[in-house]
Amino acid sequence: MKKKIPLLALGALAVAASSFAGRIDETAIKESPVRTSAPRVEPIKPIPAPKINNLAMVELGKQLYFDPRLSKSGHISCNSCHNLSMGGTDNLKTSIGHGWQPGTLNSPTVLNSSLAIAQFWDGRAETLQEQAAGPIANPQEMGMKHELAIKTLETIPGYREAFTRVFCSDTITLDQVTKAIAAFEETLVTPNARFDRWLRGDDNAINAQELRGWKLFKSSGCVACHNGPAAGGTSFQKLGLMKKYKGDNSVEGRAAVTHKEADRFKFKVPTLRNVELTYPYFHDGEAKTLEQAVAIMGEIQLGRTYTKAENEDIVAFLKTLTGDAPAFRLPQLPPSGPNTPEPMPFEVAKKK
Amino acid sequence: MKKKIPLLALGALAVAASSFAGRIDETAIKESPVRTSAPRVEPIKPIPAPKINNLAMVELGKQLYFDPRLSKSGHISCNSCHNLSMGGTDNLKTSIGHGWQPGTLNSPTVLNSSLAIAQFWDGRAETLQEQAAGPIANPQEMGMKHELAIKTLETIPGYREAFTRVFCSDTITLDQVTKAIAAFEETLVTPNARFDRWLRGDDNAINAQELRGWKLFKSSGCVACHNGPAAGGTSFQKLGLMKKYKGDNSVEGRAAVTHKEADRFKFKVPTLRNVELTYPYFHDGEAKTLEQAVAIMGEIQLGRTYTKAENEDIVAFLKTLTGDAPAFRLPQLPPSGPNTPEPMPFEVAKKK
Repeated sequence: MKKKIPLLALGALAVAASSFAGRIDETAIKESPVRTSAPRVEPIKPIPAPKINNLAMVELGKQLYFDPRLSKSGHISCNSCHNLSMGGTDNLKTSIGHGWQPGTLNSPTVLNSSLAIAQFWDGRAETLQEQAAGPIANPQEMGMKHELAIKTLETIPGYREAFTRVFCSDTITLDQVTKAIAAFEETLVTPNARFDRWLRGDDNAINAQELRGWKLFKSSGCVACHNGPAAGGTSFQKLGLMKKYKGDNSVEGRAAVTHKEADRFKFKVPTLRNVELTYPYFHDGEAKTLEQAVAIMGEIQLGRTYTKAENEDIVAFLKTLTGDAPAFRLPQLPPSGPNTPEPMPFEVAKKK
Repeated sequence: MKKKIPLLALGALAVAASSFAGRIDETAIKESPVRTSAPRVEPIKPIPAPKINNLAMVELGKQLYFDPRLSKSGHISCNSCHNLSMGGTDNLKTSIGHGWQPGTLNSPTVLNSSLAIAQFWDGRAETLQEQAAGPIANPQEMGMKHELAIKTLETIPGYREAFTRVFCSDTITLDQVTKAIAAFEETLVTPNARFDRWLRGDDNAINAQELRGWKLFKSSGCVACHNGPAAGGTSFQKLGLMKKYKGDNSVEGRAAVTHKEADRFKFKVPTLRNVELTYPYFHDGEAKTLEQAVAIMGEIQLGRTYTKAENEDIVAFLKTLTGDAPAFRLPQLPPSGPNTPEPMPFEVAKKK
């Protein structure tokens, strides 16, 4: 889509350019073509553009993220359940794991996951790096013993070279693998949502209905949990504060990590960034549409029944949180070597 | 990788540039930086660069190719089994279909498939467009009734818009879906392999061992079947001409299409382009390595036992057939609408 830059902005641009003595701040220009107000201070903050510290590591992590050889079957990659063509999710109620096993919880989006306080619904991994090791070895997910994953990578000449280049080491370790995957995932942020442009002062970036939705979202208390740059991911909260959740209440949630009864059925507040793409919703994927999710959240978290118009306004606002999807070339994976262990798609784990 | 352009070539370049009155033929320069011989006339021809006639249709086809919503489960896309990160294959003996069902035959590469006389191992589809409809509805593969696939696409607003734009029509048809997928697949050619550069006259593009391998490949008769730009795909041939194939001989092969006994166990000759990436080999994926495949082909098709050195030479030659992988951005898929049918991952077809 072409962006029109009005004359006023071009004037501001010329001033900006001259004040930087010839060094134009391209990011600032791109993010705010029409600045008609001062930047707004709100409970949701704009997402900063991704920072890449080590391009070679990010590229390696991208390959690993897309490589199904990290699964026992040779069929499932990180991207299978956190699909970067689909908002970083698989848009399934629960994912499909090794041997077509159903997952236990809805796969959260990988997009902007670097902005969260912890990973997984129960926050059992503190970092993206720690998270990345989990699904590989989970018998219900990728089902691949870590030792076998490392052996697989070590026997792929292209990976050996890449790991040597990135980590200056002759051996490949799980720590390196997850570090590279996390480095790639840290780049998966989605700046420049319309709401962010509005936050930065572009009054025209959202329309009247969306603004009403935002005001209601704020005034009715959604921002108590959905705040920060990711509009979520900053705390653990009990599902069903005001009214019992109608779905399965037997999931431990945060208590699985803290072993505190008070944390039972608490979950990490999910990000609302790109929420129009990350359906279905909630830890169990039971809410199919944004309208349903907003209605249920209003009732069980805030004790409030939104009117149809209010619900529509909030949904309209939520859709302004869709940002620029990470744009990159589909990676090419290095071929296996003569000693690379073969995938075992039809060997299903015996114990449940 | 940096390509060094020697002074001689730069001189030739200057001449070329001046003879075109300032218009430099960039393709010619890129493909033949060191032309030291005349182009070679051989049974294998260079792959021409991809032609794109209708960019909007190709882009739509790319989205469809990556969209798992064309499967009943919402989990399997064309790219699952013909993975464009992995030489257009899944590198599995046979693929994993709906409900984790094993496929019956090895998934052939989609790369350069537009250069083949027909599609599928038995050639039962004459065109890429005809092929594309098959796996969607196959209960062992994507398991999605065509009607449901169309209904799914029709309820996705982003697809409705794209189909209207590309096909100037208010309805979405299977014919349009497969036409778009085929248009994308036609772009999936892999030019500029080292062997192609050699064919075009670059003497240094392949080394002495690779050249020996090519000469042996030619003199021992492999080119009788592996010829043309795809080094295959030009005919149907019986597997086990000189000696019975050791694997399962019960597959009908081409006879399933022609119903002629003479065509039993005949298969479309697979392309050898990018063959180092498309393991495992043969219709049943029984050959794990190129060395094994070359040895078996020599014995059962040509009645010849290659020495270890000969085998290595041919394998070295085969690896010169790896071309430029199609380079494109991972597509972003439009989100489902409120009426889009939900995926049914755990509804497995009853009849086998």
